[in-house]
Amino acid sequence: MSATEIKKLVKEPRITLVGAGPGDADLITIKGIKALKTADVVLYDALVNEELLEFAPENAVKVYVGKRSGDHSFSQDNINKLMVDYALNYGHVVRLKGGDPFVFGRGYEELDHAASYSILCVVIPGISSSIAVPGLQNIPVTHRGLSESFWVVTGTTADGRISADLYQATRTNATIVVLMGVHKLKEITQLFKNEGRNKLPVAVIQSGSTENEKVAIGIIDTIVDIVEEKKISSPALIVIGEVVSLHPMFQPIREFYDIVAEG
Amino acid sequence: MSATEIKKLVKEPRITLVGAGPGDADLITIKGIKALKTADVVLYDALVNEELLEFAPENAVKVYVGKRSGDHSFSQDNINKLMVDYALNYGHVVRLKGGDPFVFGRGYEELDHAASYSILCVVIPGISSSIAVPGLQNIPVTHRGLSESFWVVTGTTADGRISADLYQATRTNATIVVLMGVHKLKEITQLFKNEGRNKLPVAVIQSGSTENEKVAIGIIDTIVDIVEEKKISSPALIVIGEVVSLHPMFQPIREFYDIVAEG
Repeated sequence: MSATEIKKLVKEPRITLVGAGPGDADLITIKGIKALKTADVVLYDALVNEELLEFAPENAVKVYVGKRSGDHSFSQDNINKLMVDYALNYGHVVRLKGGDPFVFGRGYEELDHAASYSILCVVIPGISSSIAVPGLQNIPVTHRGLSESFWVVTGTTADGRISADLYQATRTNATIVVLMGVHKLKEITQLFKNEGRNKLPVAVIQSGSTENEKVAIGIIDTIVDIVEEKKISSPALIVIGEVVSLHPMFQPIREFYDIVAEG
Repeated sequence: MSATEIKKLVKEPRITLVGAGPGDADLITIKGIKALKTADVVLYDALVNEELLEFAPENAVKVYVGKRSGDHSFSQDNINKLMVDYALNYGHVVRLKGGDPFVFGRGYEELDHAASYSILCVVIPGISSSIAVPGLQNIPVTHRGLSESFWVVTGTTADGRISADLYQATRTNATIVVLMGVHKLKEITQLFKNEGRNKLPVAVIQSGSTENEKVAIGIIDTIVDIVEEKKISSPALIVIGEVVSLHPMFQPIREFYDIVAEG
């Protein structure tokens, strides 16, 4: 075998972090699909739509590395190691992540780990649920006269507490989007009550963009009960702000409470 | 002609607001492409990549409604009217908008206008430059230990002032992304200086995701000069926060100023 022939067999290791979007398989980008089509290995997370795996070559290795309750869960260290091992042994690894790789996706840690092995790693952005999931419910994160900004905060920090940023957020006019926070909804609404913002509109949306989508619309004072009644649970996001009042389900709430925008 | 045949000729009016993404044509979603393929009319903005028009049928009407300096510019009212007129006369209007329709895109106004004519209007989210453009420069908007949230603010409010939200943002630990604010960079950096945050890392990225992409990396105290030197101008976004220090171009800056993260 000539040197050139051997070189053809040993593929150049490389990694592509691809954002798979919020759940609907059609919400991946063209660029993401192109990466999948050239994958030798796909490492995919729990919130990734598995239909997307069909875009990868039939003989590509597909490895589930997500965390689901009850399953053995992969630590970030495990994932980093797998990613590099597969790249060195198989060639092109597509790391398929829910939403966008850099929105609480720990994408930079993966990028950094690949760099420490001098493996080329590129990022393909994905549709972040933080913007798209409210949007698909016709709740705009910004809207003239109601909101000039939006602030996306995690409900689950590394050490389990509520982010200090969320305390600050309660005192601003930003539309606030809390990801991975529905299990702390009561504590989060309490922060807004402490600021006297009891009538601020709130939406909680589970499994946005998928056929299992569920939505609860209320105000700070009522949303915990509504979410419980509708049996809404993870994965879900919380949207807090006047823009939620644009949702059709808010109309009867407005009339009942005679709510005028805080403006 | 039978009633059924006539009905086939008069197409049902409908509108789809499609986010075209930040500029790279491959950063549109599969769902966006599917909508374009069934368009009778495409109304597109200035920051939309015109290559995307090729996905629409050859005989579809393609109308540029963007604003460019020197051109006659369409007001939002004009666009709303055109959108409805075309839908009533031609059928399926795809309203192709830069980024995501609801991130300072005035998408809700278009949705609302369509609803006032009882025209079905659906939204297909797009990749927002606010997350993707920093991401493509390997600047994660969130990163463990550096940022638990990101706050996206417009630099251009309806009445030309700096958003009150940006004043608030200077006092938080959020990664701050300012869209459409590069012409106010000096005033924006002054707000951070007023808070004593002179060494906070800043990136300014022009035409992110396209072949014309340009990037300036500095700190609050230096970024205005660097942007001027590199001749960076609109369309550009500003990223302010510790996450910018992860960019390779920040390394010499860190050494020069002996910067330690504010934490």
